[in-house]
Amino acid sequence: MTPTITAFANSPDRGQGQARDMRVRWALEEIGQPYDVRLVSFGEMKQPPHLALHPFGQIPTYEEGNLALFESGAIVLHVAQRHPGRLPEDANARARAIMWIFAALNTVEPPIIEWEQAVYFERDRPWYQARLPLLEKRIRGRLEQLSRRLGEADWLDGAFSAGDLMMVTVLRRLEGSGILDGYPSLRAYVARGEARPAYRRAFEAQLAVFTASQG
Amino acid sequence: MTPTITAFANSPDRGQGQARDMRVRWALEEIGQPYDVRLVSFGEMKQPPHLALHPFGQIPTYEEGNLALFESGAIVLHVAQRHPGRLPEDANARARAIMWIFAALNTVEPPIIEWEQAVYFERDRPWYQARLPLLEKRIRGRLEQLSRRLGEADWLDGAFSAGDLMMVTVLRRLEGSGILDGYPSLRAYVARGEARPAYRRAFEAQLAVFTASQG
Repeated sequence: MTPTITAFANSPDRGQGQARDMRVRWALEEIGQPYDVRLVSFGEMKQPPHLALHPFGQIPTYEEGNLALFESGAIVLHVAQRHPGRLPEDANARARAIMWIFAALNTVEPPIIEWEQAVYFERDRPWYQARLPLLEKRIRGRLEQLSRRLGEADWLDGAFSAGDLMMVTVLRRLEGSGILDGYPSLRAYVARGEARPAYRRAFEAQLAVFTASQG
Repeated sequence: MTPTITAFANSPDRGQGQARDMRVRWALEEIGQPYDVRLVSFGEMKQPPHLALHPFGQIPTYEEGNLALFESGAIVLHVAQRHPGRLPEDANARARAIMWIFAALNTVEPPIIEWEQAVYFERDRPWYQARLPLLEKRIRGRLEQLSRRLGEADWLDGAFSAGDLMMVTVLRRLEGSGILDGYPSLRAYVARGEARPAYRRAFEAQLAVFTASQG
């Protein structure tokens, strides 16, 4: 059964692959699962039909038969669990790969989101400039710890897993900020993720939505 | 095999059950799994032995044989997955319960953490008072959506699951703030969670650590 995901009709990132549908597209490409995409406008996202799917009025969602999911972490985990090859077979290694999905979303991403929110929503507030160094310091603290754990390895725990997929998409949020420049091993880690054929296919698919919207 | 978790030797919440070991204790109590606790000081958390377990230098961790995990979400999911009864048997219902773990941690908790960080770390900054309403508004937005989804139900999706466990612990962070008072159904939801015998046992266990430290 072909699943259907939702994505922004007009992504605010203009096709840079920063919207959270990118994570789900990438996961589906990694397992070679075709999918349909339903585009939703910002207006539609706050209307009852979409809220019935996603109570917080966001994208992506995932529909497959009687199953409807939201939360990119839950969707990526679901996709990876239902198909061989993107989570380790060994139970302990699998638990650790899932742990890295949570670490990406709960430990590494939150200070990045906080910084983004300041950039997007508090830029005209009097405290904006004074708070930025504080926010960047929180991010750097996490990146320092993450790069120490990654060390010289290609991926966080053995072979590439859904945990790496999620971590790469989280670190990509920093693109253009210069913050990643201080962590060459993390930059190389992100580049390894972006070089995967499944990543490229997912990226092109979301970029095509933006290109088409520009008519 | 009895798992070992880590918890604060001196929890900053003084036994109110806000530290993240509470989530893991509760999950273990729900499945009737005895566990050992190793207390760690703030100093120890930043030293190599603990960092080898938890690269971000936090608690809780979970050790069971050759498996070592961090991230409360990953640990609660692992515990719930390995034992019958705390995740639904039906595959779709199970995926939705896991989705609520992610929703608690990734959609509802982040604005609460951001508000806590302001309260703890930016209280003496000149922008503190001006930013607070902004932060509270973000929290209320999420609570409004969550309470609409919960409706008149006891739990988020059918029977009590690990998703509810996580959501209740996230909402409990607002205790004392008055913010939950605007959402009577969410207050009642939290109270239902706190009334569970497994919750009570977990709460008493973490409180006993604080009481002993005052000895």
